[in-house]
Amino acid sequence: MSSSSFQFKDTIITKTSAPKSSEGLPPYSNTDHMVEIDWTVADGWTAPRIVPYAPLALDPTASCLHYATQCFEGLKAFRSQDGKSLRLLRPELNLARLNVSAERASLPTFDADELLKVLVKLLSIDGHFVQPGSFVYIRPYLIGTMTGLGVCAPTSVKLGIVMVLMPSWSDKPLRLYSSNPKDAVRAWPGGFGSSKLGANYGPTLREHSIAQKDGYDQVLWLFGEEERLVTEAGASNFVAVWKNAKSGAVEVVTCSLETNLILPGINRRSAIEYLRAENKTVLETKFSIDDLDKAAEEGRLLEAFAIGTAFFVAPVKEIRTPEGKSVSVPLPSLEDGSIALELRKHFSGLMYDNYTEAHPWVVVIPKDN
Amino acid sequence: MSSSSFQFKDTIITKTSAPKSSEGLPPYSNTDHMVEIDWTVADGWTAPRIVPYAPLALDPTASCLHYATQCFEGLKAFRSQDGKSLRLLRPELNLARLNVSAERASLPTFDADELLKVLVKLLSIDGHFVQPGSFVYIRPYLIGTMTGLGVCAPTSVKLGIVMVLMPSWSDKPLRLYSSNPKDAVRAWPGGFGSSKLGANYGPTLREHSIAQKDGYDQVLWLFGEEERLVTEAGASNFVAVWKNAKSGAVEVVTCSLETNLILPGINRRSAIEYLRAENKTVLETKFSIDDLDKAAEEGRLLEAFAIGTAFFVAPVKEIRTPEGKSVSVPLPSLEDGSIALELRKHFSGLMYDNYTEAHPWVVVIPKDN
Repeated sequence: MSSSSFQFKDTIITKTSAPKSSEGLPPYSNTDHMVEIDWTVADGWTAPRIVPYAPLALDPTASCLHYATQCFEGLKAFRSQDGKSLRLLRPELNLARLNVSAERASLPTFDADELLKVLVKLLSIDGHFVQPGSFVYIRPYLIGTMTGLGVCAPTSVKLGIVMVLMPSWSDKPLRLYSSNPKDAVRAWPGGFGSSKLGANYGPTLREHSIAQKDGYDQVLWLFGEEERLVTEAGASNFVAVWKNAKSGAVEVVTCSLETNLILPGINRRSAIEYLRAENKTVLETKFSIDDLDKAAEEGRLLEAFAIGTAFFVAPVKEIRTPEGKSVSVPLPSLEDGSIALELRKHFSGLMYDNYTEAHPWVVVIPKDN
Repeated sequence: MSSSSFQFKDTIITKTSAPKSSEGLPPYSNTDHMVEIDWTVADGWTAPRIVPYAPLALDPTASCLHYATQCFEGLKAFRSQDGKSLRLLRPELNLARLNVSAERASLPTFDADELLKVLVKLLSIDGHFVQPGSFVYIRPYLIGTMTGLGVCAPTSVKLGIVMVLMPSWSDKPLRLYSSNPKDAVRAWPGGFGSSKLGANYGPTLREHSIAQKDGYDQVLWLFGEEERLVTEAGASNFVAVWKNAKSGAVEVVTCSLETNLILPGINRRSAIEYLRAENKTVLETKFSIDDLDKAAEEGRLLEAFAIGTAFFVAPVKEIRTPEGKSVSVPLPSLEDGSIALELRKHFSGLMYDNYTEAHPWVVVIPKDN
């Protein structure tokens, strides 16, 4: 892997000759432009290119199509309610994680600061697609483009960024379907569940379909036939709030990163940092579906939520255990001390409020000249 | 997933207007034509198309590039020494396994008999690329083509077949590098190691690179921190031949399929069936790197080999344990009773001998009219 990197200053920009209207686009529409940066083991990275959005021409033997030599990131750019400001939240953490994932997938790394500058430029050009009080979803990705079907680290790779107008998250509380750790496991010690690889997603879709057919929104992934540890909810991190069985103290609990079983979510991290600054007790620890069930039985379970880029903070109202038992989860209001709704309120402010003062987590996108 | 299928009789053939010479092509060259069959959840499968080999135009948000919604097969077509006959060995097993993999990856299934007819037609057209005594590698694959970055079972999918002139296997005995099951695990119970998904390959390349940097050919994947079970060698199955410590009887041992930790290899299966018909004792069972090491120490280890489509039957001469100990593996000759070389000889006959009589495992490709 090359330790050298592309530089933003070398970026070549080719604007579309057929710009789309930014109004009235259906969900999942892409914006007008995208980023492409190519790498070969012989020559390292090319200069970044911002080009009109178009299909990729990939050889049918390209490594990424057969051996899942691929990793990605997901982040959002938010337009303030007054329409004046377009901003990112902690994008440097996403791009640093992309490098971690790239290394895990035997793909080349790069200077994340330079990629952030390229992304900011792309947003400067296509930012008019983001409506006031809304967001655009940003997908940086790396794929192995080496041809010939050799099973080895790709000798040619593409780094891309595309942007998609995904629908807003729903306010409907989630119903989660616990996987049975005997026959459906998302990640495991010594595996790659803590990196954002394509390989963590495709094989989980079967369980997701089973959950959806039963009327559930996401899979709650458990690990360990005996331990039945709670790890992730769908493609989000999972958080519960309960009263400690002994002390009665309110604790916010979420799976520890030490196990390497979960993705180290950026929103998870931001929520933990925010809550700890607010003097809440947040435990990154092991806990099981049985602990959750018991807490609910004893009236100690206060709430639970999924947290991630796609769904932001999504309260959970029900969890189905592997045995088919329905565990009801309370849905407190903001006034009743809901942590989920407090997080929503706080982060929505950073995302959408009319911009008044600098915040260390916020990167403001300048308008394109 | 659709239970309906495309039909061979509907195949549309478009031949290239610029055929390549079939002589003097470099390794990893593709043949002139390829198969494409598309599927949507709304309309099911399109008619098969045999078309000139060309890049695929994939939207940058295609599911297969981000979520590893992909699976594949690998098989070979062999040209006899006299050049007169082109043949496949048990291709129906590969195409049946492709359906199993497709289901595991939330991709649509199809009628494998119909796909075999399409493949035979492709080989009829491009068979002149296969030189006497040589083979072409055939890669059927399915990829999710759904756009928009939704994390769900793809609603549009492409099935393709391409053929590549891979280099012949080397006769050099392999040196294997055992993974440390504490931090590098290929597959796990409740996972997907027994299906041929892209997700089983990309995340293993890092360990493969480590092995290669140390001068080893393939990774010997161990499973279980305590058990240290021998599972697979690189992308091949692993077989050892030893004398039983108690009875002294010669046993051929290979990892059981029951664990779901290994791919159920077609060559593995053919070898087992052949050896059992020859009254050899073949055990599909659990055994560890420590069992192998002990057998070698005690002079009971007779030989070992990797078996798979890519490398066929490849004798192993050395295995490095996770502790860095080098275990020497004997390399008996055919006259000394080598099982590996007996398998090579037997299957080479089926692949390359001048065709004299029908064999139930052989499918002969007719010449194109």
